[in-house]
Amino acid sequence: MKFEVTILGSSSATPIFNRNPTSQALNINEHLYLIDCGEGTQQQMLRFDIKASRIDYIFISHLHGDHYLGLVGLLSSMHLNGRKKPLYLFCPPQLKEIIDLQLKYSETTLQFPLEYKFTDAQKAEVIVNNNDIVVETIPLDHRIDCTGFIFKQKKRLRKLIKEKLEELNIPVEYYTALKKGSDYTSASGVVYKNETLTIDSDIPKAYAYCSDTLYNEQYFNQISNVTVLYHEATFLNDMLDRANETHHTTALQAAQIALKTNAKKLLIGHFSARYKTLNELLDEARSVFPATELAIEGKTFIIG
Amino acid sequence: MKFEVTILGSSSATPIFNRNPTSQALNINEHLYLIDCGEGTQQQMLRFDIKASRIDYIFISHLHGDHYLGLVGLLSSMHLNGRKKPLYLFCPPQLKEIIDLQLKYSETTLQFPLEYKFTDAQKAEVIVNNNDIVVETIPLDHRIDCTGFIFKQKKRLRKLIKEKLEELNIPVEYYTALKKGSDYTSASGVVYKNETLTIDSDIPKAYAYCSDTLYNEQYFNQISNVTVLYHEATFLNDMLDRANETHHTTALQAAQIALKTNAKKLLIGHFSARYKTLNELLDEARSVFPATELAIEGKTFIIG
Repeated sequence: MKFEVTILGSSSATPIFNRNPTSQALNINEHLYLIDCGEGTQQQMLRFDIKASRIDYIFISHLHGDHYLGLVGLLSSMHLNGRKKPLYLFCPPQLKEIIDLQLKYSETTLQFPLEYKFTDAQKAEVIVNNNDIVVETIPLDHRIDCTGFIFKQKKRLRKLIKEKLEELNIPVEYYTALKKGSDYTSASGVVYKNETLTIDSDIPKAYAYCSDTLYNEQYFNQISNVTVLYHEATFLNDMLDRANETHHTTALQAAQIALKTNAKKLLIGHFSARYKTLNELLDEARSVFPATELAIEGKTFIIG
Repeated sequence: MKFEVTILGSSSATPIFNRNPTSQALNINEHLYLIDCGEGTQQQMLRFDIKASRIDYIFISHLHGDHYLGLVGLLSSMHLNGRKKPLYLFCPPQLKEIIDLQLKYSETTLQFPLEYKFTDAQKAEVIVNNNDIVVETIPLDHRIDCTGFIFKQKKRLRKLIKEKLEELNIPVEYYTALKKGSDYTSASGVVYKNETLTIDSDIPKAYAYCSDTLYNEQYFNQISNVTVLYHEATFLNDMLDRANETHHTTALQAAQIALKTNAKKLLIGHFSARYKTLNELLDEARSVFPATELAIEGKTFIIG
């Protein structure tokens, strides 16, 4: 099953040339899940061949403009391009008011159902549970209400050892039960333990997205052992005071979080416009957590 | 005096790769006047070296998203970059409500005065009158309230013929009166007519910006004899029905308007995303009005 993330924007509050505000597109089994939608996300999607028509879920972490100002433009383009199928939007409740006002004054009635599911920044909740994935909110610690999101693959059924089943002439109608873990008893009464007929499926992968937040241990438990952790790293650690004041994280802190929560890999992003190059941020994070990468525009990372 | 326009966006409703929604930056005597501000205008300004700090006036024609969705991001960046001087925003009154709501939910208090001047789509009005320029609204005919804008240079004072003044030993304190058109009477009582001491200043230039509109002769008188006419040309004329239905103009109509109103030069823009190349639109307009250019991203046109 495909499980990968493409970075559409890596910039914090103000954009700089070639760095756009935050947005990421998750491809899960060929369905697209858009996380945050800063200004210009539509253009980034065109640039990196992310098809808007394949997005069914959009997640907005909070209502600072660099995380959502591209949304109304994207909805409008979906509408103009003839979308009819529903779009599920997970966001703070106030975003509905903002969108409704803009649609009202442009006299636009969307031609597709926009289904809102409001997030609650005070508690972790399961907000999506479909065949491929479970998504939970992560309450973060920012200046305004803000949630991250964790995407957990579901545990798949066990895999059949086909040669063994054929050797024993086990009828096909038993296969589903075997995948679910049952033992098999033959017509002559011999019991074959499930472990001898199937193997365990892959360990489910998880992607945690921690947008704007102060370093705060409260959410560490929820993101423990993820396959890939995206964490904001707005500043170098020599600006820790500024990070604390603005409720952001430094590259060093992001790496410490990855280490503490036992992530396999760390992606850092949401870089302040003051950093024209990003090597120092990467070096600082890698000094603590070597498996760190820069989450920059156009890069795709496999969650695995 | 510098008087030129740089195109930041040429696309209509939905952006396509390398074509952004509408925005233009007028440079008038080194002051910047931004006209419309579609999504991604900030990024276009970075690309084409248009400094946000030099913008004092912003004009928004109407509240379709492709003409204003970049505005809140731009205001936010001005705020974060330490702007203190006032910004004058000319726009439909409902835009204040939209901006206020977004600032409220991001808990942002702009650190500079944002001075609103509301446009009235029912009548032409002078909305700016400073040392360099007079700006008037142009009531257009779109699906929602929409105004264009016409920027008219002021008539400058007459130019002194320095050699003549020195030859006659005319004291410097008379120069201002001469520039304003007075004759000069010497100590001995000889009258020198102003025309022998000064020459007329250049004919004032004018730039008319006609964003989204149906072909409608009502505004033609107001834009007659401009130096440069920007007119939307969303469709080729084989889509005239669609243009009428959506209250837009075809390239052929834009050229007919330039011809009828005696423009010196025509710029066309606001191209539908269906046109991957623009040659046909240009050819169609030039078949009627040869002095036509494509108003595409990054191009600068001198109004003169």
